[in-house]
Amino acid sequence: MVPLNAVPLSPFPLDQWYVAGLSWELKDKPLARTLLNREVVLFRTGSGEVAALEDRCCHKSLPLSCGTVERAGVRCGYHGLLYAPGGACIEVPGQDRIPSKARVKAYTLVEKDSILWIWMPREEGAVPTHEAPDYWVHGDSRYQFKGDVYHYDAPYQLIHDNLLDLSHLGYVHLRTIGGNAAVHMNAELKVEGSGDKVRVLRYMPNSAPPPTYLAAWPFKGNIDRWQEVEFNVSHLLIWTGGADVSTEDLSDPQRGGFHMRGFHAITPETETTAHYMWTMASNHHPDRPDVLEAVYEQTALTFHEDKEVIEAQYENMKRFPGAPQIDIHVDVGPNRARRIVERLVKQQVQEGA
Amino acid sequence: MVPLNAVPLSPFPLDQWYVAGLSWELKDKPLARTLLNREVVLFRTGSGEVAALEDRCCHKSLPLSCGTVERAGVRCGYHGLLYAPGGACIEVPGQDRIPSKARVKAYTLVEKDSILWIWMPREEGAVPTHEAPDYWVHGDSRYQFKGDVYHYDAPYQLIHDNLLDLSHLGYVHLRTIGGNAAVHMNAELKVEGSGDKVRVLRYMPNSAPPPTYLAAWPFKGNIDRWQEVEFNVSHLLIWTGGADVSTEDLSDPQRGGFHMRGFHAITPETETTAHYMWTMASNHHPDRPDVLEAVYEQTALTFHEDKEVIEAQYENMKRFPGAPQIDIHVDVGPNRARRIVERLVKQQVQEGA
Amino acid sequence: MVPLNAVPLSPFPLDQWYVAGLSWELKDKPLARTLLNREVVLFRTGSGEVAALEDRCCHKSLPLSCGTVERAGVRCGYHGLLYAPGGACIEVPGQDRIPSKARVKAYTLVEKDSILWIWMPREEGAVPTHEAPDYWVHGDSRYQFKGDVYHYDAPYQLIHDNLLDLSHLGYVHLRTIGGNAAVHMNAELKVEGSGDKVRVLRYMPNSAPPPTYLAAWPFKGNIDRWQEVEFNVSHLLIWTGGADVSTEDLSDPQRGGFHMRGFHAITPETETTAHYMWTMASNHHPDRPDVLEAVYEQTALTFHEDKEVIEAQYENMKRFPGAPQIDIHVDVGPNRARRIVERLVKQQVQEGA
Repeated sequence: MVPLNAVPLSPFPLDQWYVAGLSWELKDKPLARTLLNREVVLFRTGSGEVAALEDRCCHKSLPLSCGTVERAGVRCGYHGLLYAPGGACIEVPGQDRIPSKARVKAYTLVEKDSILWIWMPREEGAVPTHEAPDYWVHGDSRYQFKGDVYHYDAPYQLIHDNLLDLSHLGYVHLRTIGGNAAVHMNAELKVEGSGDKVRVLRYMPNSAPPPTYLAAWPFKGNIDRWQEVEFNVSHLLIWTGGADVSTEDLSDPQRGGFHMRGFHAITPETETTAHYMWTMASNHHPDRPDVLEAVYEQTALTFHEDKEVIEAQYENMKRFPGAPQIDIHVDVGPNRARRIVERLVKQQVQEGA
Repeated sequence: MVPLNAVPLSPFPLDQWYVAGLSWELKDKPLARTLLNREVVLFRTGSGEVAALEDRCCHKSLPLSCGTVERAGVRCGYHGLLYAPGGACIEVPGQDRIPSKARVKAYTLVEKDSILWIWMPREEGAVPTHEAPDYWVHGDSRYQFKGDVYHYDAPYQLIHDNLLDLSHLGYVHLRTIGGNAAVHMNAELKVEGSGDKVRVLRYMPNSAPPPTYLAAWPFKGNIDRWQEVEFNVSHLLIWTGGADVSTEDLSDPQRGGFHMRGFHAITPETETTAHYMWTMASNHHPDRPDVLEAVYEQTALTFHEDKEVIEAQYENMKRFPGAPQIDIHVDVGPNRARRIVERLVKQQVQEGA
Repeated sequence: MVPLNAVPLSPFPLDQWYVAGLSWELKDKPLARTLLNREVVLFRTGSGEVAALEDRCCHKSLPLSCGTVERAGVRCGYHGLLYAPGGACIEVPGQDRIPSKARVKAYTLVEKDSILWIWMPREEGAVPTHEAPDYWVHGDSRYQFKGDVYHYDAPYQLIHDNLLDLSHLGYVHLRTIGGNAAVHMNAELKVEGSGDKVRVLRYMPNSAPPPTYLAAWPFKGNIDRWQEVEFNVSHLLIWTGGADVSTEDLSDPQRGGFHMRGFHAITPETETTAHYMWTMASNHHPDRPDVLEAVYEQTALTFHEDKEVIEAQYENMKRFPGAPQIDIHVDVGPNRARRIVERLVKQQVQEGA
């Protein structure tokens, strides 16, 4: 196998905030995670600071993630070298002098709205050029949320494709958020966007609510259903929901009904594998204290269905290298996102990143 | 790993009928199988037709074997594209026009005597030059049969070697069809053949019946035992059996006694792996209603013993690349079959297949 | 994967006795083991002779380790060829003449002190230039011993490093033979050596006995503790122990107290994997009949901790190819041993081995 770090970074858009993890993942142990081909150890010091370092002791190369977290930093589990959040070794047990080369690379890690954002610069060690994104949903009392982190044996862009084309719900997710395939395939579809954003809007007025919706919310019959997907380079925001037919205005951002707000961070692990870190938030219903649990369970089920399909798809792409693919009507959104990623990567290659 | 489809077909004899599967394998779900480096999906439509297509949706490359079988063909499990047995996409849900390139390769698949024969042409898409083989045993009421499909981590020719040299029974199959090693090693042996066929005939008159024979048939004591192996390029027919000493004429094709008729299809999966699809038929004994069960169980055990040896052999050949092998007296039949395969492959390379 | 035997032997010091196994491993079945990239079958004939051959039948390449041991040698499990301890095939069942090429390579294997030593010559087939090492401890009635064989997914030299630097005990082995990290890191350290030997001596007077010591021996309080490590190219001898404070002279080779004498053979399997074959001996205590059991259990636990760390270290070295490492004070011993191995390998490359 080609060692991961021998692979250049170029295939991924850089100078971007990527999600490195979810806040609750950092407990009393360091966490190893490969992000954009970089082996990183994430940890929260005893004093509460979060940090991301190269996952390698500079002495004998043991992963720092095999070590322990202390108040001042992370300590290697082989000979006890201690590293501060900035990457400098600050203690070599049994030795007074600390060699000047005793340090490892550090990454900028920011914790915000229960999300750990890592800055992936074009130039090693460069500071962020802008602030990490906000995600208001995690802090809004109208919503509750839960989430998880999945590992994908598939390139990150296949997950983009999947999330930007929700027509697959009628075939892949019949048991959960699907519903009638024909309704999905014939839904009103709008694709828009500017800069590095794409928005795919789909509306299915007067359609039957799918199993997940029925499990979560006491609908009276058919619903007016919406799906609004916002693609950003490192993550997608997907707002879906439904309301009893003709009770809400689907163009009103403050509309009522049953809401699901998905946060979908897709962080490349390598060119061919990815982390899918997601949360799902839903609103409250006065008579249903367990809406969130129902939504979470069904969402996890749904995302496992996607994972199965996407990994099978990628396995097969490897079996048929170079086989042509045809486009159909649902590919407008995914293709637009692909062009954004291509443009960013091309640009940084041209500019010598 | 080199992607399978990047490998040229030349190492396998082409313009041949290979066994793709056994009839009972095609139920209500499509079946994925790699045959001669080609990823194939096998299915039986709701109307009973059997078909073999390239296992890849032409839209997003999901294996069609992840989809569902319908009356008209196989439907992709991602966005619902429907393919007819001939390979043409006949429905793109939500879209009126079907792109002209929306099709996948199709293979000629014929169902005959409970066997699924696939034509593997030199030139892609070419039609068969002759009919698929008959196998009368599966349709003869004097016999009952059962079978299975095994996957081998070894090249197909090592399985040919094994089946064409039954002297290994005395060492590998002591617990089942073996018997005294010296008797096997000193059995009367005749090798004959013409064209692309080889026949290896072995007779062990007045020998002790091995465990499998005793489990299946009420022999009185020693038996006159026969083994007649017929090699064909894609499959072997092995007729073995025994009769109480001096009660039957071993040169009489209609002779009585206990019969086992094995059908052994060895279809290369890749250059280094193979499918072994077999059935074993046995005749009836008035007092033994369960002869077939006994024979099947013992055969399965025996074939697992072979699999273990052949896979260990291949593993070791990889450990000792280029190590010389010596020939002994039992190798005449196997070597003759190897020369047939070599000749066919060489010929098609020369003719530019 | 590159086939193992395609790899030249040069990275290992040759013209050395390596440990191939421990005596009790050779029972009634042959044993397969890869040593310095050579696939070897080890066996003890019915007449008690131990032997090491190339693990491949010269007929169809089945590993001889899949066969059976007889009085005269090892018999192949496919067609019954029988090999004598010297490598010659002495029987081809069913055939009078034995082909002159029917033989496999043999290695010099010597059984001594319950250890199986194999001679690994520079020139294939060359005889040993000196006797196999003695290990008196296994034959001394003051000691009892037990041992095991571990497989390492790491190059042999990382195990050398680990055993030559016992300062890691304070971090890796807190639960067993560790103890206070600061005491370890500040222990009095002496490194000496000549020729192909290195000795690392560490003394920790008046220190708290670690858990393993307490489990084995009735110490009264603090102890004077010693660790004496002797590196040889193919194996290390480690003498550790402790005595109640000021009751023994740590420079007296006949000193009393609690003794652990470890025999640590590290035999490369390939460039990147190794066998770790060890025994641990301890002395008797009149009131503690089960000292050895306690010592053995704790040692096994300890060595598993090392294995975990070293394999994680190696995995990470592959993730960071070419990443620099810094040296600290504890690396003097390990580095000296590395230079010996480097010198030997360089020398044999220059001399054309």
